[in-house]
Amino acid sequence: MDILDHLEQVIAQRRNASPDESYVAKLHARGLPVIARKLGEEGVEAAVALLSGDDAELVGEAADIVFHLLVALNARGLALDDVRAELARREGVSGLAEKASRGED
Amino acid sequence: MDILDHLEQVIAQRRNASPDESYVAKLHARGLPVIARKLGEEGVEAAVALLSGDDAELVGEAADIVFHLLVALNARGLALDDVRAELARREGVSGLAEKASRGED
Amino acid sequence: MDILDHLEQVIAQRRNASPDESYVAKLHARGLPVIARKLGEEGVEAAVALLSGDDAELVGEAADIVFHLLVALNARGLALDDVRAELARREGVSGLAEKASRGED
Amino acid sequence: MDILDHLEQVIAQRRNASPDESYVAKLHARGLPVIARKLGEEGVEAAVALLSGDDAELVGEAADIVFHLLVALNARGLALDDVRAELARREGVSGLAEKASRGED
Repeated sequence: MDILDHLEQVIAQRRNASPDESYVAKLHARGLPVIARKLGEEGVEAAVALLSGDDAELVGEAADIVFHLLVALNARGLALDDVRAELARREGVSGLAEKASRGED
Repeated sequence: MDILDHLEQVIAQRRNASPDESYVAKLHARGLPVIARKLGEEGVEAAVALLSGDDAELVGEAADIVFHLLVALNARGLALDDVRAELARREGVSGLAEKASRGED
Repeated sequence: MDILDHLEQVIAQRRNASPDESYVAKLHARGLPVIARKLGEEGVEAAVALLSGDDAELVGEAADIVFHLLVALNARGLALDDVRAELARREGVSGLAEKASRGED
Repeated sequence: MDILDHLEQVIAQRRNASPDESYVAKLHARGLPVIARKLGEEGVEAAVALLSGDDAELVGEAADIVFHLLVALNARGLALDDVRAELARREGVSGLAEKASRGED
């Protein structure tokens, strides 16, 4: 199983754990604005790491974004598969657009 | 193939396309600071969508984050698999920590 | 009059203008989430300009932050003077803390 | 003296203090990427406070933005007056644009 899907399952399970034992439960206990803040901050940190950090820092910040994005989606009852479907839909549209711009049919 | 990995390949291919035809090539032509800015902005937009948007908006912003994260990783010669490996490493550590905190061996 | 206070007055006046004629009115017409998004995005842009931009870019992004911060405060019925009071309060505390750490009375 | 200008002077003075005694000196010791990260994060926190926080939280986050913006400007040898000049320049342009759009001369 893809670690991303595994992580999504783990996050769903930990949501109802004790906030003392689980970071995910702690985030939920603090509420949606804290999850939103963390998600936005990870975006900033990844941007700064892209410009100023080494590879390990950028990978670490990217992992932080993915983790908090999965927490945010789960908090709203959404799944990574919803994001995959949206990306596939866009890629279909984009592929057609690129073909059209190249004069292909 | 996972759409995420497919998208990663497409991004790598489009990087050298004409900026007039490809959004990825356009981002690269504008430089790393613009890619960093977009990544950070998508984090903000996802945070706001989590608090104020409907499901479609949140999924759309999540797709934007994933897309620009893949562009950023590719721009630095890194891959989604590097992020998967980091998440797996953390999850291993975290799993052990949760076990320990429950007194399991 | 300080341009910051003048700008605050102008923002308060334009709030009720036509969205076609005023950027401030347009922001209000689009709602608080859009104002929040702009504020967060300007923070990202200033961060990127600090790391990668020239002086004019950084000053421009700083001006964008101040402008959208004034719009956000006004949208909630708050004023720059509230922020000044908070900064003065902190500076008082901080000044005392620095004195204490230097062993002064 | 405006607390904003006073704060700017204090920040310039503390820059060369010991990182153990001064938050400003600590930020400088950690480097420009950390200052950029803080500035971007404060933008996110203000955006979330605008949508979800009470007045005191929003004012507190606004104060955080202003503080870190002054640190960022100072780190690059720029001043709040540079931002004031840019805002005045824009307001002049904007005022003219609004007049023009109203058919005034």
